[in-house]
Amino acid sequence: MSATHKAEAKPPMRDALVAAAFRLFLERGYEQTTVDDIVALAGVGRRSFFRYFPSKEDVVFPDHERCLADMTAFLAASGKEHEPVRRVCDAARLVLLMYAENPSFSVQRYRLTKQVPGLRAYELSVVWRYERALAEYLRGRFTGRPDGNLHADVIAAAVVAAHNNALRSWLRSAGQGDASTTVDHALGYVQSAFGAPPTASTASTSTAATARPVFPSLPMPPADEMPDDVVEVVSRRGAPLWRVVQEIEMTLGRD
Amino acid sequence: MSATHKAEAKPPMRDALVAAAFRLFLERGYEQTTVDDIVALAGVGRRSFFRYFPSKEDVVFPDHERCLADMTAFLAASGKEHEPVRRVCDAARLVLLMYAENPSFSVQRYRLTKQVPGLRAYELSVVWRYERALAEYLRGRFTGRPDGNLHADVIAAAVVAAHNNALRSWLRSAGQGDASTTVDHALGYVQSAFGAPPTASTASTSTAATARPVFPSLPMPPADEMPDDVVEVVSRRGAPLWRVVQEIEMTLGRD
Repeated sequence: MSATHKAEAKPPMRDALVAAAFRLFLERGYEQTTVDDIVALAGVGRRSFFRYFPSKEDVVFPDHERCLADMTAFLAASGKEHEPVRRVCDAARLVLLMYAENPSFSVQRYRLTKQVPGLRAYELSVVWRYERALAEYLRGRFTGRPDGNLHADVIAAAVVAAHNNALRSWLRSAGQGDASTTVDHALGYVQSAFGAPPTASTASTSTAATARPVFPSLPMPPADEMPDDVVEVVSRRGAPLWRVVQEIEMTLGRD
Repeated sequence: MSATHKAEAKPPMRDALVAAAFRLFLERGYEQTTVDDIVALAGVGRRSFFRYFPSKEDVVFPDHERCLADMTAFLAASGKEHEPVRRVCDAARLVLLMYAENPSFSVQRYRLTKQVPGLRAYELSVVWRYERALAEYLRGRFTGRPDGNLHADVIAAAVVAAHNNALRSWLRSAGQGDASTTVDHALGYVQSAFGAPPTASTASTSTAATARPVFPSLPMPPADEMPDDVVEVVSRRGAPLWRVVQEIEMTLGRD
């Protein structure tokens, strides 16, 4: 709770850098903005920027590393009782959740990424890492099965494609509508193709605002057991980034 | 025929640049080789290099643009009589064919790509373009079908994943064995998952050396109807690049 409170009182430096970067990207364009411009606006030094982000591209996707870590932990916490195809579908929903937490930010980034080839390439590499995380889990579950690795790779790719088809629909609609329902429907197609009975997903009634609680099996420890870096994650999941993005929008007079 | 003859008499400049580049990449490493080094070894000017290749990365993948064009033409030449899932599987086999034409070159490149993150990123962007070509074709065929775009995207991703799983197995085996059989088996899994009855593929008896004739429906015009640039393609499909690669291998004393 204290981390959330602190975050609301003053956005952490990392969020301030993201906010400054997006303000400049929207005002001047991505290519025309330098790291020096970003740190000048955020009022910090270059070294602070590179402490959080290896490159300018990374500031565009500030939450993927955390999401990849969440996904890996979620899959690692799986047991034999989890039907594997349904499990990777649930893991993919973590990515949706990240986007749905901050619709305005996600839509802005989607538009920016479409315009900048370098960001598109970066995004492809991130998508590849998600796909490999899902495939590695499935390879483990399919060990000893004939063609286990082949099936793992194909199902992982199908899950990612279904998820991204639904995610892009939602982003193109400017973040209107219920992203979870669209993604559930898309993942249901993959489950039906690969033998996992499609069921009403655990996430089917979620909305962006309430999406977090629908992952009861997500291995998040109670707050007082969390190490410091996980507390930081909680503060980033909260309101501040929203608010900062809204501030940018108001300043720029955009929707 | 005359183009093939010309190519055998003297490798075209484009092939000479590829050969010089790979010789230097193997000797010095990719990062340590500049475009200036490549053109010096090939005995041409910088402008000649950039006439063929937009960047140093492009010389590593000299045949993907041609293969993408072949794939697009192959899909564009499809009719209603072609079952769509089987058709995209056949289209994917064109990529295998490109790799299987020059096993030594393909294996060298596979090893190089694994070592250089920038090349890996480049490869992901190429894979993405193949996947989009397949998906766009399927979207057209599934127009009016409920969830047509979703199904198209998922099937295209599954086809690419199955193809690449088989291709990587073959590359890891240093290009030994019958790549076509492995890929046919992998694509059969996708066909069975998405409702297209898996059949003995048209390519199932092919080998790298005889792979070309197994695509009777590939829309290649007779040689005397080909525009000049297509003739160039034919010369590149022939022996010269093989021979150049063998020369490199002999010079370097590698297997």
